[in-house]
Amino acid sequence: MTEDASPSADLARHAALLSGADMSHTRSEDEGTPALTLSDGPNGLAMNLPDWSGKVPATCFPSGTALAATWDESLVTAVAAAIGREARAAGADVLLGPSINIKRSPLGGRGFEYYSEDPFVAGRIGAAFVNGVQSAGVGACVKHFALNSQETDRMRVSAEVSDRALREIYLAAFEHVVTTASPAMVMASYNKVNGTYATQSRHLLTEVLRDEWGFDGAVVSDWGAVDDRVEALRAGLDLEMPGPGIGSLRRILAAVDDGDLDPATVVQSAERLRLVADSWGGRPAVAADLDRHHELAVNAAAASIVLLTNDGVLPLSTTGGTVAVIGELARVPHYQGGGSANASATRLDTPLEALVEALDRSVIFSAGYSSDAGERQRLADDAVRAAREADIAIVFLGPGEGSESEGYDRGSLELPPEQRALLTRVTAANPRTVVVLDNGGIVLTSPWSQHVAALVEAWLPGQGGGTAIARVLTGAVNPSGRLTETIPLRLADTPAFPSFPGHGGRVMHGEGVFVGYRGYDHSEREVAFPFGHGLSYTQFAYDGPAVIDDGDQTGDVLVEFTLSNVGDVAGAEVWQVYIRPEHRGDDRPVRTLAAFGKSQLAAGATTRIIATIPARAFAHWDERREGWATDAGSYLVELAASSRDIRTVTTVRRVASRPPTTLTSRSTLREWLTEPEVGQSLLHVASEVDPSGATGGFLSNPTILTMLGDIPIERLFDDPTTRLDADLLTRAVVASGRQAGAVVPG
Amino acid sequence: MTEDASPSADLARHAALLSGADMSHTRSEDEGTPALTLSDGPNGLAMNLPDWSGKVPATCFPSGTALAATWDESLVTAVAAAIGREARAAGADVLLGPSINIKRSPLGGRGFEYYSEDPFVAGRIGAAFVNGVQSAGVGACVKHFALNSQETDRMRVSAEVSDRALREIYLAAFEHVVTTASPAMVMASYNKVNGTYATQSRHLLTEVLRDEWGFDGAVVSDWGAVDDRVEALRAGLDLEMPGPGIGSLRRILAAVDDGDLDPATVVQSAERLRLVADSWGGRPAVAADLDRHHELAVNAAAASIVLLTNDGVLPLSTTGGTVAVIGELARVPHYQGGGSANASATRLDTPLEALVEALDRSVIFSAGYSSDAGERQRLADDAVRAAREADIAIVFLGPGEGSESEGYDRGSLELPPEQRALLTRVTAANPRTVVVLDNGGIVLTSPWSQHVAALVEAWLPGQGGGTAIARVLTGAVNPSGRLTETIPLRLADTPAFPSFPGHGGRVMHGEGVFVGYRGYDHSEREVAFPFGHGLSYTQFAYDGPAVIDDGDQTGDVLVEFTLSNVGDVAGAEVWQVYIRPEHRGDDRPVRTLAAFGKSQLAAGATTRIIATIPARAFAHWDERREGWATDAGSYLVELAASSRDIRTVTTVRRVASRPPTTLTSRSTLREWLTEPEVGQSLLHVASEVDPSGATGGFLSNPTILTMLGDIPIERLFDDPTTRLDADLLTRAVVASGRQAGAVVPG
Repeated sequence: MTEDASPSADLARHAALLSGADMSHTRSEDEGTPALTLSDGPNGLAMNLPDWSGKVPATCFPSGTALAATWDESLVTAVAAAIGREARAAGADVLLGPSINIKRSPLGGRGFEYYSEDPFVAGRIGAAFVNGVQSAGVGACVKHFALNSQETDRMRVSAEVSDRALREIYLAAFEHVVTTASPAMVMASYNKVNGTYATQSRHLLTEVLRDEWGFDGAVVSDWGAVDDRVEALRAGLDLEMPGPGIGSLRRILAAVDDGDLDPATVVQSAERLRLVADSWGGRPAVAADLDRHHELAVNAAAASIVLLTNDGVLPLSTTGGTVAVIGELARVPHYQGGGSANASATRLDTPLEALVEALDRSVIFSAGYSSDAGERQRLADDAVRAAREADIAIVFLGPGEGSESEGYDRGSLELPPEQRALLTRVTAANPRTVVVLDNGGIVLTSPWSQHVAALVEAWLPGQGGGTAIARVLTGAVNPSGRLTETIPLRLADTPAFPSFPGHGGRVMHGEGVFVGYRGYDHSEREVAFPFGHGLSYTQFAYDGPAVIDDGDQTGDVLVEFTLSNVGDVAGAEVWQVYIRPEHRGDDRPVRTLAAFGKSQLAAGATTRIIATIPARAFAHWDERREGWATDAGSYLVELAASSRDIRTVTTVRRVASRPPTTLTSRSTLREWLTEPEVGQSLLHVASEVDPSGATGGFLSNPTILTMLGDIPIERLFDDPTTRLDADLLTRAVVASGRQAGAVVPG
Repeated sequence: MTEDASPSADLARHAALLSGADMSHTRSEDEGTPALTLSDGPNGLAMNLPDWSGKVPATCFPSGTALAATWDESLVTAVAAAIGREARAAGADVLLGPSINIKRSPLGGRGFEYYSEDPFVAGRIGAAFVNGVQSAGVGACVKHFALNSQETDRMRVSAEVSDRALREIYLAAFEHVVTTASPAMVMASYNKVNGTYATQSRHLLTEVLRDEWGFDGAVVSDWGAVDDRVEALRAGLDLEMPGPGIGSLRRILAAVDDGDLDPATVVQSAERLRLVADSWGGRPAVAADLDRHHELAVNAAAASIVLLTNDGVLPLSTTGGTVAVIGELARVPHYQGGGSANASATRLDTPLEALVEALDRSVIFSAGYSSDAGERQRLADDAVRAAREADIAIVFLGPGEGSESEGYDRGSLELPPEQRALLTRVTAANPRTVVVLDNGGIVLTSPWSQHVAALVEAWLPGQGGGTAIARVLTGAVNPSGRLTETIPLRLADTPAFPSFPGHGGRVMHGEGVFVGYRGYDHSEREVAFPFGHGLSYTQFAYDGPAVIDDGDQTGDVLVEFTLSNVGDVAGAEVWQVYIRPEHRGDDRPVRTLAAFGKSQLAAGATTRIIATIPARAFAHWDERREGWATDAGSYLVELAASSRDIRTVTTVRRVASRPPTTLTSRSTLREWLTEPEVGQSLLHVASEVDPSGATGGFLSNPTILTMLGDIPIERLFDDPTTRLDADLLTRAVVASGRQAGAVVPG
């Protein structure tokens, strides 16, 4: 690729590739490397028309939250393949999705786009999405790497986060996607991580992403996320978007001229971009079957709907009597979030039309509420009348258009006050009231959910949502969605509550790894609906699990169990396996999701399932050793229908595994003395150096250890009592028989 | 001072002063600057004997928590003056106290030494303590500056904290003490703050402490806290302790030789130390009246005791019937914490002896529990028998010796399980059960406190505690202590719960300013006993407050109210004034303590009180403007008997005040456009530069502002649409009429 030419012209040719040509294209090269067309679209192609007058019509699938709530990797792959096909049809080469950031706080404006509060779910669903997109011949770009958990001050804020939370929570989904699904691109996020822009973090973009995880695609900036182009390039950011980036090109060339930037760095990034362009660019367009895609959108939406409560009122009988459909959102649904994910739907099924179609019953519609405050009293009175006259009331509620978008965070988790007031009156008028929620990130359901006969979470369901809702309400589809995000009782109960969204340019992740259900379990807090929760029109019974392969106490574990549909209708169960250390340290989660699956079973049917629990599920990130470590001991394997509905339990043992120690002179006295072999060796060497016994006496004195255990050992070097010095430590290490380098004084 | 000599010898003479001579002395100079003797002792002189075989006998006053619980500045000053006098008597020149760190988590091992979860209380009590010590001719050393909120990994851990929490919570008490009481020394703490050792933080030790607050004393390191002596010196750390610090001396001189360190820095610190030594050193010894000091210790302990609940069982009648005194802690009390604060008491009043003395009743003692598990059944059976036979049972409970100390954090807030089991049996045997708590940091009282007739928090009361407890129980002293730390229902409810004590070398202060009652109020969480709570044997009524001087809506506010003792006995009330913004941002505390006082009133008496609310009480730290700012609006002035017992309310208005803006090219589009004058000016200049209106249209487009409001404005510089650049910004600033320098592009 690198042709003979003047060195500077040659370098300029490479450097030109490192910024886009415009808002949505990379630069091509005469030699044949094609330009790439990049397009938004994590829940449906969201590609701008050439004149920016709108977007290319595309199937609007359920938003990320809803896709994840299916807990169905095959279905997500099918949806993503359809999106990929529409991208390919429209001439897009790379799709800017999936969005797999962790839902740290439900206030996050982009929560509707993200999959889960749990990295295991986010990683599995994310990998399924990448596989689908790329199966259609379109590259996927996983975003936003990393910790873009909020919109407030998103272009400057520094996510201050411990290495443990970073690894166990915020990077884990990316790790899974990158290592198992080979996405074409990774998008570096706007925010800083521990003080460094993600776009300039060599640790994230090179050391972790490429060196540890083996990523071999290209790293692209979020649009406008590059602060210092030269720093970003050094860190491993290959492509700055949008273009034309003339200033950046100048700065890169000047830095090379000044000797500040190795030209090989420029060439390396250009070569990575050529590789991606050669792999994914210049492919022929294909046709997309939009009718089939619409039906897929309906099916995905139906599979995502979570039945939160049901006193038996659902499924609706399709015949006899009157149904009141209440709520403007039934007629004009809010079906997708705002910002770059927003697609131009090919059609739209509304819940009202779909219910009228599905029900052989008299349907009265009443809007119930309005953004126009002057109208509210009349609309509410009318709705209450409708509810009173009907046999059943179905009320559609949600925060509405504009409530959830890229660019700003949510102000509240509550339904609008006029909707809550309306609901109080409707439930008083008719106890057979069903609420259907229309929202992306979760909304609070306390205390009003106690007064409704059934509560249905339909998310932002995309263009097929109306039909999907009608199918679930009538039982044509048995609901099988499950929460991938806890619904708390109060905003103040959310683990990130005190620190979200931070101020002064920093957001302290004080809750550490205790995000989502890990937080509620840790603080033993009641919730409205736990992570993993969702009802069905049938019931399931679990038998087992039995450990059939314990991976020699170090590798993956296989457990076997049987699942039975013990109810009267067919349905799908999302089985979940959690790992719970029998003796946990205070700073470890109570339980962690380690496996899940979705099984469709006919009424009365039983199936045998073998679940694989990855070895990683037992590990934690050891910050001092900078690697994954597992404590020896017994772990509960919980087979569950939700994180707080544990059905059966078995145990499995693990042996300890941990990365090699690096003790230094800044390690504490306690760390030196408690390190296996080394501690004993240190005492031994000390007695040789100081036959008077003073040094050894000091080191082995329990009071000294209690009071001075936390002192970095080098602070004791100058002390005539201890006689400790670097030489003594080195001798102790050598005498301990450790291999050189495993323990490094100095 | 700086004599003619060879420059290097002269410099060595200065540098020699910058480390101690040994564990507890500074170096003297032949020319007359005396050596200083430094001694521990925040609740009583804790001075080591010359042979380190023990400590100089000294009056052991109540621990810091207890002293603060008196809410009585005059009493604290009297106690500190007595400690100072004993220091002076023993030849100590500087007393290493008070310890005024904020009680971030009740698990903090040194919580018994610290005053409060609230910086206003900590600052007032701390200043009163400094005034007392220094009135006795001994310099006070305020510690630990700053954020030494935990013992775990205290020599390395970095307290990651927002500037707002730093200023409003963690520095505020130090600010008050330094600016109002002029302590001789400030001690820099072991830990790091936002990644920099406190001992090496130029921001803390010079910019804040000296430049902003005007501190003119000397900064000393906590013992062994210096990591890099040269860095520390540059930062403003004058004295490294302990000595001899030969290595440090060598490093300082080498750094000067290498040109790395300005010799003027060495001279400046030496001069500061000479000034402190000349002020406080070489004073004659005085005599201390240990009997009077003991009586003062009794009085202080009595004033610190908090009556948490009382169903009328207290005060005890001193005649008639039988009293069971249960609990080994009544016979062998735990009366002070461990570590450097630990004093060698001159005598010790035990609760058992004092009760036997005070009561003209038959007293049965039963130990009730023991650290020896084999003894527990027998002791508990015996105690239950005693309780059953007695008319009333007084049970002494507490976590006991070794539970609270410098050097390690607490493992639990619960009373020992055997004590809780005992209490269950005792309350079942005799409902007239009074519990007296013997602890430093708070212990949990749920749910057992509901089953006792009265609950008395006696803290670690020092050597006079036994007599003090007897006086309060019998009503000889009417209890008047109040909590300076909330007692939560559960450890998991404490605001720092998820992040304390951190790991991997960092502790994220995710709760920000929501420490203590600010946190419980913010999350609307129930507590066992709120901040400021404490009962009396009489009742008080409030009338008012009326604002008598609103400080022209910018300065200090004076409010007047009357307080009446409407009960039958004399007593003292701790009145509290909280400020509550009528419209608060999500990130502001609900209420903040702004004034308090303690008034002793005869039965039936009324007093008129004028309280000063400092202007600061209305302000918050504006991180972007790096200064104190006040929002315009109405503020509630709450007159209260605790943070959750608001008696009467008035309001006061404030005008806005904020430090000058510094807008830069890294300020966001929104920050530029919403800045008064500047935003309009920017639109105007943009229309001049681009008559086509595109630039102005871009800047005034509400959708652009929503989506791109958070973008640093310089990221828009390369964009042909916006035509923004540094020149345009400068013109806008100039055109806005702002004075040059107030707004700085670039």
